[in-house]
This record gives sequence, C-alpha cells and structure tokens, in this order.
Amino acid sequence: MVAGLSLNTVTVKEKWGLADCIEGCARHAIPGISPWRDVLQAMGVTAAARHIRDAGLTVTGLCRGGMFPAPDAAGRAAALDDNRRAIDEAHRLGAACLVMVCGGLPPGSRDLPGARAMVRDGLAAILPEALAAGVTLALEPLHPMTCADRSVLSTIAQALDLCDDLGPGLGVALDCYHVWWDPEVAAQIERAGKSGAGTRIAAFHACDWLVPTTDLVFDRGMPGDGVIDIAGLRAMVDAAGYAGFTEVELLSRRWWAEDPDHVLATILARHKAS
Amino acid sequence: MVAGLSLNTVTVKEKWGLADCIEGCARHAIPGISPWRDVLQAMGVTAAARHIRDAGLTVTGLCRGGMFPAPDAAGRAAALDDNRRAIDEAHRLGAACLVMVCGGLPPGSRDLPGARAMVRDGLAAILPEALAAGVTLALEPLHPMTCADRSVLSTIAQALDLCDDLGPGLGVALDCYHVWWDPEVAAQIERAGKSGAGTRIAAFHACDWLVPTTDLVFDRGMPGDGVIDIAGLRAMVDAAGYAGFTEVELLSRRWWAEDPDHVLATILARHKAS
Repeated sequence: MVAGLSLNTVTVKEKWGLADCIEGCARHAIPGISPWRDVLQAMGVTAAARHIRDAGLTVTGLCRGGMFPAPDAAGRAAALDDNRRAIDEAHRLGAACLVMVCGGLPPGSRDLPGARAMVRDGLAAILPEALAAGVTLALEPLHPMTCADRSVLSTIAQALDLCDDLGPGLGVALDCYHVWWDPEVAAQIERAGKSGAGTRIAAFHACDWLVPTTDLVFDRGMPGDGVIDIAGLRAMVDAAGYAGFTEVELLSRRWWAEDPDHVLATILARHKAS
Repeated sequence: MVAGLSLNTVTVKEKWGLADCIEGCARHAIPGISPWRDVLQAMGVTAAARHIRDAGLTVTGLCRGGMFPAPDAAGRAAALDDNRRAIDEAHRLGAACLVMVCGGLPPGSRDLPGARAMVRDGLAAILPEALAAGVTLALEPLHPMTCADRSVLSTIAQALDLCDDLGPGLGVALDCYHVWWDPEVAAQIERAGKSGAGTRIAAFHACDWLVPTTDLVFDRGMPGDGVIDIAGLRAMVDAAGYAGFTEVELLSRRWWAEDPDHVLATILARHKAS
C-alpha cells in the first residue's frame, strides 16, 4: 500500500461508479477513497459502507455538504435538511469529514456579505447534529473564480475565522488548486495548526493549475502537470500537524476521457514521485 | 459631459484604433480615456498627446507597465527597460498613472514567493524614474485566476504592503472585476485612504462578473450585467478619498464583436444609471 493516498471519486466520474472505484483502489493499492454523494446514493449508503470496509479502505471525506445561500427561507431550510442527510451519510460511512462547499450568491443577488452571513448561519444550524454524529465539517475555501456561483468562502483565513467563531466540530479542507495563489497561505496554514485542540486541517486535496487553464471548472491538472508547489503545501500542512491522506480530486474533461485504470496508475506514479 | 467616466481603449480594440477612440469619446461626451500602449505606439506618442489634448480628454491611465518576473537576469533587465519606456510615455501623455500588471510566474517556475520578490525588486528599480517623471505607478491586483501567467499580485492588501514598503510614487489601481470577491475588500480600501499623504487609490476600473463566466480572460461583463456591487465599491473608494474617474475596461469577445458606437452608448447609459 502506498501510504497516504486517497482517490476522490469525481476524478473518474464519467466511467466509474462507486463499486468500480472501490475495486480500482484495491487493485492499485490506493488505501483511501472519498466518494461524492451521487455515486454513494446510487450504490446505497449501507452497501457502500460494507464494500468500502471489506476492501480495507479509509474514507477520507464525503463530498459534499454546504450550498447554504438561497433566495428565501424555504430554500435555506431545504439546504439545511440536505446537509443533515449528508451528515448522516458521512457518519454511516465513517468518513473522516464532510467536505463543505458553502455556496455562492443566491440567484439575482449582489449581496456578498449577506451570502456570507447565510453560510455562517447555516453552519451554526447544522453544527449540533454534526457534533452529535462525530462528523467534522471540513470548510473548503474555493478559488475566488467560483465566488459567484459555488463558494463565497474563498480563503483559509475566512474558514479559520468561522472555526474560531463557531467552535469545535469545524475544520478546513485544504485543496491546493483553490489556495495556492493566496499570499497568506503559509501564515494561515500555520494558524490552522495552532487551534489549541489539534490541527484544524481536516483534509488535503491535491491537483494542479495548468497554464493555460481553459475552463473555470473542468480543467484541473494532474499533480505535476502544472505550476503549484504541491510538495511545498504538503510540507506546510505536515508542519501544522496534519497527518492524514493526500486526496486527489480532479475535475478534468481531459482525464475523464481516459481509461480510469490509466488515471489511477498516473495518480499513483505522481504520488510516489512527490 | 458625463462627469467621471473614462474609456479604456481595450474595450473596443477589435474595431477602433486610438484616433477612433478619441473621436468616439468626444462624440459620446465621455471625458476620459485610458489607452493601451499598442494603440498609443501605433499612433505615435506625440501625435496622440496632441489629439487627446485637442479633444479635451483626461488621460486617466496608461495600460500597462509591469511584467517583471523572468527566468533570467537579461529578461528581468529587458522588463525594466520596457517599464522605463512606459513611464516616459505616461509622462508625455500626462496620464494620471501608469497601470502596473506585475506579471506571473516565470515559465517553468513554481516559485511564487520568488516571483513576488521579482515584482518588488522591479518596482524598486523603476520607482526613481517614475518619481522623477511625476508618474504614479498604480499597482493593479489581478484576480487570483491570473496568478500563474499575469499577476502574482492578487490582493489590495499585497498592493498596499508594497506601497508601505517602497514609499511614495506608488498607488493602487482598483478594478472591481479583480477584487470584488475579496473578504478584505472594504477593510483594505479603507486602509488605502489612510496613507497620511492622500488616498492610495490611483484608478477605479469598472466591469462586471458574469454567471456563468466562460473564459478566464475574455468574458468580462458590461457593468450591470453581472453580480458585482459596483456602486458599493465606488462608494467605498469615494469614502477613501478617491475623486477620480470610473474607467470602463472590458476584455470581452461578446462586446468586441459589437459596433463600438453601440458599446460606448451602452457604457454611458449604464454609467448614468449607476
């Protein structure tokens, strides 16, 4: 087994369901898996938990909760209900965390502070259930280019401010692709390690920034193919007390078109070389 | 005349040269212009300065200097030479500032702190010439999605840190498109107003963020067509002591395909409505 590597199922989503991913990880000796909820629900949570356990895999995260902002109270309440289901699924899977993609502006809105308040309020509302279930809510800052439609949470500093504000039960999912550009990345990762109750880093996701990047969502690079100093970021989270897996999560039309066994072999080779 | 509006020439670059832009501004009663250096050099600096003066236009900026990082010393020296020519051109035009797009990673590099040091060193090297010429170097933080290939300067905070570090002669060019997502935008604009020697805001550029955005460079939105609270940002820079123009700078394949007179009329209508 290669220590510390996990496959996020979105990386091969065009050709493999969850059963294929579980078998693929076992076949390639990749010890971790992080499912998205669509493939999880397609298999069924109970069956998935059993298959993953039987394959000896660690569930490094469940993707994803969040998406709190909505134009009206009914929409926000529906988001909370969906997050509660996600917490339950993460608990039943024994996932290390539930990754939170917090959501963008409500349709038609230009009120960014208002959307951020909806994120805070949504997290505060579901935190008791998460604590009761023993599920860490891993706040994932997303690249600022997703601010309008996916995540008004853009920086590690914002995520840690929410951790400080709302208390235990929250952490940070740190994805190289989303944070590498941040002038505060080193200082904020160091801050994440000084919470007084262990590191706040709950997940570490690796993928690369290609030059040029041709799409705002679906052109992420295989680790090693771009300009991000992934090894340097991994060293920072190590120093901040994170001892967990490196999860590879690619949203890439180029890699989705490949044979998934080739994708997994490539991920493994890049991980060994890093 | 509509007070406070300026046309950046890149907005109509596919169909109009600088002479067309000058005549277009006069025809539409747009009192400011901000040329890019390619159209400026095509007309010739002396002729351009005379035509702009004869048309009664204010030059709100010259685009652009910067692009400091390079793989070797010769490349960095060539960048300095080009910046010195840009300072001279800005001086001869009587431009309110030289807009600085500072540059990305050198090709093949993953050393982001190193590239940022090259930017700092480059600015320090040309600052004496800028001061002597009376040309403000307006540091433009660019959206983090341009970090790899256009600007390792991503935030207002970074720009102000450089202003504090290097001293008088520097300012900030604040483009709504590049900074609207920043959780610190209000605090940093307020900081820009407290320099002790007048506001650090040297330019205010308006364009909008479309949902969805289909290209990382050439899909900027006409003010009013997207999700940015441009009026709110303008109020912030007003409160921080900026009394200058609102410059409209669109890089947009959609608007480049339009009749430039229609583009200018639309800009003017949106500006009056804002």
